[in-house]
This record gives sequence, structure tokens and C-alpha cells, in this order.
Amino acid sequence: MLVLFTDFGLEGPYTGQVNAVLQRDAPGVPVIQLFADAPAGQPKPAAYLLAAYADWFPPGTVLLCIVDPGVGSHRRAVIAEAGGRIFVGPDNGLFELVLRRGVQPHLWEITWQPASLSTSFHGRDLFAPVAAGLARGAAPNDLAKPIEIVTRSDWPDDLAEIVYIDHYGNALTGFRGDRLDALARLHAAGRVIAPAKTFSAVPAGEAFWYVNSNGLAEIAVNSGRADRALGLAIGTSIAIR
Amino acid sequence: MLVLFTDFGLEGPYTGQVNAVLQRDAPGVPVIQLFADAPAGQPKPAAYLLAAYADWFPPGTVLLCIVDPGVGSHRRAVIAEAGGRIFVGPDNGLFELVLRRGVQPHLWEITWQPASLSTSFHGRDLFAPVAAGLARGAAPNDLAKPIEIVTRSDWPDDLAEIVYIDHYGNALTGFRGDRLDALARLHAAGRVIAPAKTFSAVPAGEAFWYVNSNGLAEIAVNSGRADRALGLAIGTSIAIR
Amino acid sequence: MLVLFTDFGLEGPYTGQVNAVLQRDAPGVPVIQLFADAPAGQPKPAAYLLAAYADWFPPGTVLLCIVDPGVGSHRRAVIAEAGGRIFVGPDNGLFELVLRRGVQPHLWEITWQPASLSTSFHGRDLFAPVAAGLARGAAPNDLAKPIEIVTRSDWPDDLAEIVYIDHYGNALTGFRGDRLDALARLHAAGRVIAPAKTFSAVPAGEAFWYVNSNGLAEIAVNSGRADRALGLAIGTSIAIR
Repeated sequence: MLVLFTDFGLEGPYTGQVNAVLQRDAPGVPVIQLFADAPAGQPKPAAYLLAAYADWFPPGTVLLCIVDPGVGSHRRAVIAEAGGRIFVGPDNGLFELVLRRGVQPHLWEITWQPASLSTSFHGRDLFAPVAAGLARGAAPNDLAKPIEIVTRSDWPDDLAEIVYIDHYGNALTGFRGDRLDALARLHAAGRVIAPAKTFSAVPAGEAFWYVNSNGLAEIAVNSGRADRALGLAIGTSIAIR
Repeated sequence: MLVLFTDFGLEGPYTGQVNAVLQRDAPGVPVIQLFADAPAGQPKPAAYLLAAYADWFPPGTVLLCIVDPGVGSHRRAVIAEAGGRIFVGPDNGLFELVLRRGVQPHLWEITWQPASLSTSFHGRDLFAPVAAGLARGAAPNDLAKPIEIVTRSDWPDDLAEIVYIDHYGNALTGFRGDRLDALARLHAAGRVIAPAKTFSAVPAGEAFWYVNSNGLAEIAVNSGRADRALGLAIGTSIAIR
Repeated sequence: MLVLFTDFGLEGPYTGQVNAVLQRDAPGVPVIQLFADAPAGQPKPAAYLLAAYADWFPPGTVLLCIVDPGVGSHRRAVIAEAGGRIFVGPDNGLFELVLRRGVQPHLWEITWQPASLSTSFHGRDLFAPVAAGLARGAAPNDLAKPIEIVTRSDWPDDLAEIVYIDHYGNALTGFRGDRLDALARLHAAGRVIAPAKTFSAVPAGEAFWYVNSNGLAEIAVNSGRADRALGLAIGTSIAIR
């Protein structure tokens, strides 16, 4: 199975062209569109989001991950493996947390080169063909050379920031719920937010936090949009008390 | 064929994870994404929208329908059958109109339980596996027990409200067009709106109503957005004169 | 391969119903969603966008193209062939540039009629079944009659306007990059915009233009949204100096 995690949007041409390449190079392999609205151009919050959501997919899954503000510069293109899952994308920190948390992490620099490479769309020209090849059974060593994993020691294990606003206006933090005390209060944008088990456990209009279905601490408002009600956006700092 | 009718949005993680479950449990069954922007958290307008659009699909279609503000509370999870189509989702009124209008309606309460059930994402953990099972040929009685259909007698047969704003800004009412006099005038947001056959039958910028391609009375503005021009939103009341 | 180029949006019901028809009439043929946000109701900018992006697909591709403000009026429904690709859609200028630029252009008026044709959704009722038939191997002459290509001589070979704003806020012009001097400056919305090779070649916040991965001159801002920073929208005029 191929899984897409990008900041491409769905309506424009980017996801469509990537899908066309995957269909051409890995016909018949199911493609799951997971995120097309990962934090645009921001690999750091995207890395914490990816680690939480990749974990739900079975080993053997190939995840094509593109949040790539440095496209066209000299950042490397890599294949990462951790927990039996394979990740393809830019070497800009996007795989920091999956490598740090996953068992048996490995990293390769992509050496395969397409016949034609645009300067601005490596997702289509480079990463999608590599992901398709891996999904069809190629080994990372066929397309890349092993390199050392260098940890970004200044990035924390959990990120005390909002990393994603979902379709309902819920604000996902970069904190794993099981790292927080079940009674912890989150401080964000000048508000103190208490925990609740479910939306229906609090009155309409009230903010709360809970552990979402992929294990992240998430701030929500029952029958409302937490982003607008509380003034939350990607990058908003959270304090835990 | 599996059809999705949800308020999940497409870009976020929800539709993707549901598709991953459907792909895992019903490989090879085509999945059609019909609505990902059904009225968010509002089963009542969603019910009138669903009834109009489900009718277009052939008997045997399985529709996975999730507008579920009560997820995590004690609302039941159900399978509904009407007109030869099968619906899976929460028991919150979403299937009221398909059951009321369809021939040979039946209702079951889902008794099947997944190995792991999150409190906030029954779409992925409960409803999608059940829909996949039905699409692969399981009978409702294999996964659920028959229950009595209790009609919400306070819900009308047609809803005199806006139930959906489409991509162009057209405002769909909950009224079936064939229940209206062809010359009826709709009163909405302080305006009187006359009927027309097609967009090109009225001058640019003028509002009109017509019977849309799925049988609902729809308010539109030629070369404009009716929602902004007239101040219409989901829930806006309509009067018919 | 079937490719969709429309202004339908993805979340609403339109793309879903079209996909259901394609699945019914051409089961197993891969469908690529290229654009669902082509310039809404504006065939002229859409025509320049389509010509640039269609060119990337291999000969034999069938492109279902629907930007159709005149649906329900007397505009013709056509099949166009150029450069070995086949296009299906309304005869409103949408295929002007693919016919003008492509080798061996041909045009047919669709004569096939569905059993049931709504007045407002020919995409679903007429164009999708025709595209599916062509994708399954029908010849244009089976569904349509040859007609003469009449060029819109008042439309330029390249359009000095913004024709699309992408998910990142980048503004695509209707000018092919290889028709511009590599050092040309673009004048738009009172600003003078110099060329650069890549995003990372200019400071954050600075505007530049470059030749995008499909050959169009595109205005962008490094780490910013060009549409908001410069006040650009579909239809904004560009001058080249």
C-alpha cells in the first residue's frame, strides 16, 4: 500500500500528477491519500504529525511524504525505514520522529535520477517514481546508498505546539497523549483547557482536550471550532501544567 | 459499490484512514467519494441531502454515512436498508428520510465489535469495517440485530431550509422540486426568488430557483454565488408562496 | 487513462457522481483527478491552463474537461483530438489552445444522447459516458460527427493574465516560459517581478517568477503566498518588459 502525506492540496495539479506517476509506475497498488494539507512548507510540525499517523499503518506500507520548502536547493532526497514502514521524501527533518521512535531505523540517500527533473516538483519527478519502485518490491539499496542517521538533538521528543488544524477546527498538538497526566491542563493562547473523554462529556461551546484516535493530545470545542474560538493556529505554543 | 457520505473533509486524515480500512477489508470494491462536506455535525439537513442523492445510485449500493456529533455517547450504530440500498452509520436521524421514502425499509442495530474502538473515530473503527463486510456480501443479520423503525414525526417530509451550499455557491433546499408548483416563488433572507429552467435563462447576476439534477429545489445566481449574493447558509429558512 | 479537468470541486457531489459514471461505464480504467478547481465558469483562462497541463500526459490519454457556464443553453458538446490526446467537453473555447498547438487536430460534435439528460449536469449525464466510451476504445466517429475547427482569432497564443492560483498562493500566468526572455521582468498589480531559478534563490518574502514544472511562467513568493502579498487573482493582467 502507498500512502500520501503532503502539503500539495487535492484540487490543484500536484496530487493528480503524483497519482498519475504512481499509476504509471506501480499499476494496481492501492494509493491512500492520508494528508494533502500537512503544515505547508513546515517540516518540523509535519514531522510530529507524520510520526503519530504513520504508526497506524501496517509494516510494509510505503509512505510518500512531501513537505519540501527547500526543493531546488541542495537538501538531500532520502529513503527512511523504521518500524517496518518505508518513507520517501526530503531530508529536512520530516522523518526525524519516525526514525527516533521506530525500531530498526535506517536511512538512505537516493542516488537514482530520473531522465528529466524539474527544479520545483521533485514530488512528481523524483520521489513518486522511487516510492512506486519500492511499493513494487525494489530494495532501498537498488535506488539509494546507506547513510548515517544524524539526530536533530534540538528537536524535543514531543512538540508543545499546535501541529495541525483539522476540518472541524480541532487543534492537534505535537504531544502524545500517553505522555501527559490524564488530568493535565493545557495552557494555550491565554486559556486553560481541562481534559474530557468525549465531545458529549462537556457542554456545547466548551473547550477541552482529549487523546485523539491516533494518540495525539487534541484541543476541541463541543459543537464549535476550537481554532476560531480559542485563536489557535499551527505553531501556537502550548504549556502543560 | 461503496459510496461515502460524510462531513470528514478530504484533505485531513479522516477520509484517508476510512479508505485505508475499506481497501484492507474490501479490496477491489470501487469506492466513490460522494460528499465529504455534508452539513458538519448536523444530521437533520444531512438527512434530506442524503435522501436526494442516494436515490441516484443503483440498488445494491452500500453507503457509508457519517455525520456523527454524538460519537462517544450512547447513540446507537445502525444498518438501514431501503429501496434496495444499504446504509451504515449513526442512529441520529441521518437515515430518517431514506427509510421514510424507500420501499421495504429495514433497520438493524450493529452488534459486531472491533478489537479496538477509539472514542472519537467510529467511522474508521466501526462503521467502515461493517460497510466493507456488507459490500463483500455479508448479510446485515451477520453483523447486527433487527430493530424497529421509529419515525421522527416532528421532521417534515420536505425541509424548508437550505441544506447544502455547493462549490459554486448554489444553495440547495431540502425540498424536492416535484413537490413545488413550477411557478412557485421562494422567499429566503428577505428576497423573493422566481423559477427558471437554466442558468442562461436569466441575466448575469440574477437569482432564480430550479430543480437540480438530483431533484432538489436549488437557489442559484447566474454567473455568481447565491450564498454570498443573498446571504444564504445551511439552516436558512425558506418560505414557499 | 482518464484525466479529469473541471471546476466541480472535490468535496461536493459533482466529482463523485462523475466518478460513479466512469466506474460504471469504464470499470478498471484508472481515473486521475488533475484539476477540480479550474477557473470556475471561465473557459478562456482554463483553456491556457489545460493546454499546459495536458501536454504532460502520454498520447492516448482521454481528458474529460468541464468548465461549462453555458450548460443548458445551445452550446455544442464536442470531442477534440490533438497531439494524440482526446478531449471531451463543451464547445466554448476550452479546447482552443490544445487544438491550436497540437499536431493533427480534429474536432467532432457529439451526437450520442443519453436516455436521460438533466439541464444542469451534462458532465455526469453526457460527457462522462462519452469519455468512458472513448477510454474503452470507441472511436470518436461512433459517438460524434466530424466538424470544422473554427479558430478564435481574437485569443492570443499566450495569455498575459493570471490563469490559476495554486494551493500555495502561487500565481500561474497563461504565458509559456520558453516564449519569454529569461531575463524578462513581469509587471503585475503595480509591481515589477524579476526572474529566479528556484524558491531558495531569493530571500524569504521576496517575489519572483520562474518557469514552472509544466512550462508556464509562474509568480511566487519565497515562504509566502504571492496571491495575497501582491494582490493577484485569476484575470489579473500581466505586462512583460
